[in-house]
Amino acid sequence: MRILVINAGSSSLKYQLFDMANETVLAKGKVERIGMDTAILTHEPDSKPEVREVSEILDHTTAIRRVLDMLVHPRDGLLRVISEIDAVGHRVVHGGEAFKGSVLVDSEVKREIKKLFDLAPLHNPAHILGIEAVETNMPHVPQVVVFDTAFHQTMPPAAYLYPVPMAFYRKHKVRRYGFHGTSHQYVSERAAAFLGRSLEQLKIITCHIGNGASLSAVMGGKSVDTSMGMTPLEGLMMGTRSGDLDPAIVPYAMGKEDLTIGEVNSMLNRHSGLLAISGTSSDMREIEEAKAAGDKQATLAFDMFEYRLRKYIGAYAAAMDGVDVLVFTAGIGENSELLRRSVCERLTFLGIDLDEELNRTGSGTERTISRPGSRVEVLVIPTNEEWMIARDTYVLVKERGLLKPNVVQ
Amino acid sequence: MRILVINAGSSSLKYQLFDMANETVLAKGKVERIGMDTAILTHEPDSKPEVREVSEILDHTTAIRRVLDMLVHPRDGLLRVISEIDAVGHRVVHGGEAFKGSVLVDSEVKREIKKLFDLAPLHNPAHILGIEAVETNMPHVPQVVVFDTAFHQTMPPAAYLYPVPMAFYRKHKVRRYGFHGTSHQYVSERAAAFLGRSLEQLKIITCHIGNGASLSAVMGGKSVDTSMGMTPLEGLMMGTRSGDLDPAIVPYAMGKEDLTIGEVNSMLNRHSGLLAISGTSSDMREIEEAKAAGDKQATLAFDMFEYRLRKYIGAYAAAMDGVDVLVFTAGIGENSELLRRSVCERLTFLGIDLDEELNRTGSGTERTISRPGSRVEVLVIPTNEEWMIARDTYVLVKERGLLKPNVVQ
Repeated sequence: MRILVINAGSSSLKYQLFDMANETVLAKGKVERIGMDTAILTHEPDSKPEVREVSEILDHTTAIRRVLDMLVHPRDGLLRVISEIDAVGHRVVHGGEAFKGSVLVDSEVKREIKKLFDLAPLHNPAHILGIEAVETNMPHVPQVVVFDTAFHQTMPPAAYLYPVPMAFYRKHKVRRYGFHGTSHQYVSERAAAFLGRSLEQLKIITCHIGNGASLSAVMGGKSVDTSMGMTPLEGLMMGTRSGDLDPAIVPYAMGKEDLTIGEVNSMLNRHSGLLAISGTSSDMREIEEAKAAGDKQATLAFDMFEYRLRKYIGAYAAAMDGVDVLVFTAGIGENSELLRRSVCERLTFLGIDLDEELNRTGSGTERTISRPGSRVEVLVIPTNEEWMIARDTYVLVKERGLLKPNVVQ
Repeated sequence: MRILVINAGSSSLKYQLFDMANETVLAKGKVERIGMDTAILTHEPDSKPEVREVSEILDHTTAIRRVLDMLVHPRDGLLRVISEIDAVGHRVVHGGEAFKGSVLVDSEVKREIKKLFDLAPLHNPAHILGIEAVETNMPHVPQVVVFDTAFHQTMPPAAYLYPVPMAFYRKHKVRRYGFHGTSHQYVSERAAAFLGRSLEQLKIITCHIGNGASLSAVMGGKSVDTSMGMTPLEGLMMGTRSGDLDPAIVPYAMGKEDLTIGEVNSMLNRHSGLLAISGTSSDMREIEEAKAAGDKQATLAFDMFEYRLRKYIGAYAAAMDGVDVLVFTAGIGENSELLRRSVCERLTFLGIDLDEELNRTGSGTERTISRPGSRVEVLVIPTNEEWMIARDTYVLVKERGLLKPNVVQ
């Protein structure tokens, strides 16, 4: 059983090929600069050298074709024929209220995803291109879509509604959706498994802190709140996104600088966050280096990032009336011992007792970083959204009897 | 020593006359509909019947003149001559970064307040009208201005800066200022006095919950964070204000409904909050009645209001790494036992142990509503911003030797 996982962007496409029997990645790679005559395909087979090709790739259909060619390449490939791929799973950013879980792709599903173009103008159109490119290249393969929003569909109305006129919800779908759901679900499930405890009985706060960043309050395995909102702009301070603001700043800034709607969105999404305060970088590693060298703006950027994250952890403890487990994941969450320490050492009131030695050591593995007596278990759990997409895809195609007998082994 | 406290709005003006020796209110009242030929002056002397007059009052100078006339009125007045008023204290909403405390009014101070018209377009111009109206009517009386923002000027940069390009701060003064500072300061000081403990050693969260609502994290007597921001729109859900939103909702709503900057500000400030969700009222008393009668939208409005308040309490506990005292004040905070109970019974993780009997009983007085063993003391402290303004005014005029010998007793 082999599943190809695809994350299609507007000018890029990432993929991973999973062998579900062994739960291994056979290959991963990406196509960049789709639409240009110097597009780049980077292919990383598990047990062979990396391959890099520069060529003209003008659309997603061609991009998928090149990826498939690579997978069955006589020298660098891993498959004899494309039909060894049993199913394809796609990451889709926005599932709106229509999708509360992963689904098999059909024309109705594609129609629903298209209805959400307005809410995810940068992402959903690209995902449809990816899905249709697979249809063209592999007409008979079952496809599954896995939504970033689905895990958060369990939020109660008091958490997902905004206090603006209800017409904006009813007419324009303005509500909190939340994102990174696949990651929040994965790390909360892994946290319970790691601790050997029942997910149903745990209050978990999951901190997915990468270039994009969000928290989720996960109670009994269900998301009850999350910091990203209608869009991925809300919540934590991020690499280039502002996160939470006085909403009045938006029209004020538009008036002062004569900005259009597009310009103010661009300012808040691409020129804010760590980049805006440090003045130099959106990358937490560079921020931490500059801070260590005494750079004042970088120090301020780090402090704001940490402070805003810490306040959200307190807020979500209040949302659930307590917290049993705090999980750090994604690029910064998994790798910044300084951020984890800075947050945890100022949350002693929650009963958090960080083990500084454990926090400093180990990487790439699931591990606890709190002391045995800590009232809150603090964990680092590497996220794996691609694996979750492969797993959902596997479960759905199996349930529907769409698995063909695996003649090739 | 008598001090007149004035809170001037664009078409209204409230006043209180204090006798500082006894710390008593001699009279209070208000002028409404300034600018109309049917303006209303309501005068409430402490020991005489209320007086109500309808007349043409076209500007603030006339409004102040009528108030002074009333105070020396042969039948309803309390003073023999206007000069018995030793000083006038004004509430001023926005002091920007220029004012970290109350100050005596001079031409430089007025200039600074005028510079902030942009940040408080509805309030500061009205305050200047009030100050100049007093100058015209009482040319020699010392005047003091007390700012809603001043108490929060102790916030550190990590709390007051927003993660947007620094140019917005440097050029357009975009930062968190916070409001209700006079109230947050008053109730935090009273809380320490009530408990017989040193303010310097306490972590206090003050919840000023009225039609406008904000929290403050007060550590060692200093505001370290507050929920209102550059404007009073940010933070908690309020009667008609949204509070926190995904900032992306603002341009999205403008685009969808073709709203101008003025219209979107009006939507968020005057047509959101409790009113928008309940669909019927911005008044918490009416929301609670409708909820008790089973109204679904009112119940949702209450739940959202409570949930957002509770999350902020958790966030501010995280901001200070703990909380010793939780204070409820202002209209809703002092009077809604249901809101206090709903919040507190879901904050047991902080060690809050509410005494339901104490929460139900007593009103208008400073009181504890938590059980003796509660790790956090929960208090109700009626706010008194006018008294704080009178007190600051008294202290400043006394310091500067501007008190005349009080010949009339």
